[in-house]
Amino acid sequence: MRPYKHPAASELVLERVLYALSDSIRLDIVRHLAHVECATCGELDGGRPKSTVSHHFKVLREAGLVLTESTGTTHMNTLRHADIESRFPGLLSAILSQGAPAKRKAGAKKAKAA
Amino acid sequence: MRPYKHPAASELVLERVLYALSDSIRLDIVRHLAHVECATCGELDGGRPKSTVSHHFKVLREAGLVLTESTGTTHMNTLRHADIESRFPGLLSAILSQGAPAKRKAGAKKAKAA
Repeated sequence: MRPYKHPAASELVLERVLYALSDSIRLDIVRHLAHVECATCGELDGGRPKSTVSHHFKVLREAGLVLTESTGTTHMNTLRHADIESRFPGLLSAILSQGAPAKRKAGAKKAKAA
Repeated sequence: MRPYKHPAASELVLERVLYALSDSIRLDIVRHLAHVECATCGELDGGRPKSTVSHHFKVLREAGLVLTESTGTTHMNTLRHADIESRFPGLLSAILSQGAPAKRKAGAKKAKAA
């Protein structure tokens, strides 16, 4: 099995990191990884279909957020905390420290412009 | 002209804010607005086509980042700094304090997984 490719820390792009974290499934995966040393895809998929989760891991890898290593048939994922921190100081902790996002209510009233 | 609709501060969703800032044009608009009290769309469009810029302003408004008010035929935009700060403390400054993103080089080498 070919090893996954990952961008170097110096190649990380802010917009790509923000895009990777702009999806609630990917944000959940990163939140989970922030609290463990590493985790298999199965531990992080939340019971979602493999094809869906594979796409999300690809986005996270390409943004430089997650390192995936193959050990036999298992894929082990690690948060690239040090790389993100060296490239974008304070960014990841500022995002992950935010509380759980508010759920949008159907028909919720929006504030109008003054 | 009907006023633009804007979400209330309590309705802001983290993923939507991150998505809005995951585009370099929108990130530039927000960076610009962070340094001025307000600005017209024309001052922020960087010479881009109106249709393109209108879409970006819509995404920024719906994420709660920008307030657009119509005064006659002019649209005046303001960064909703206080609302974003009250909902997501430290987030906006952590994002805007990052340097200009690295440009991706064609054929740039990628680090392989260890």
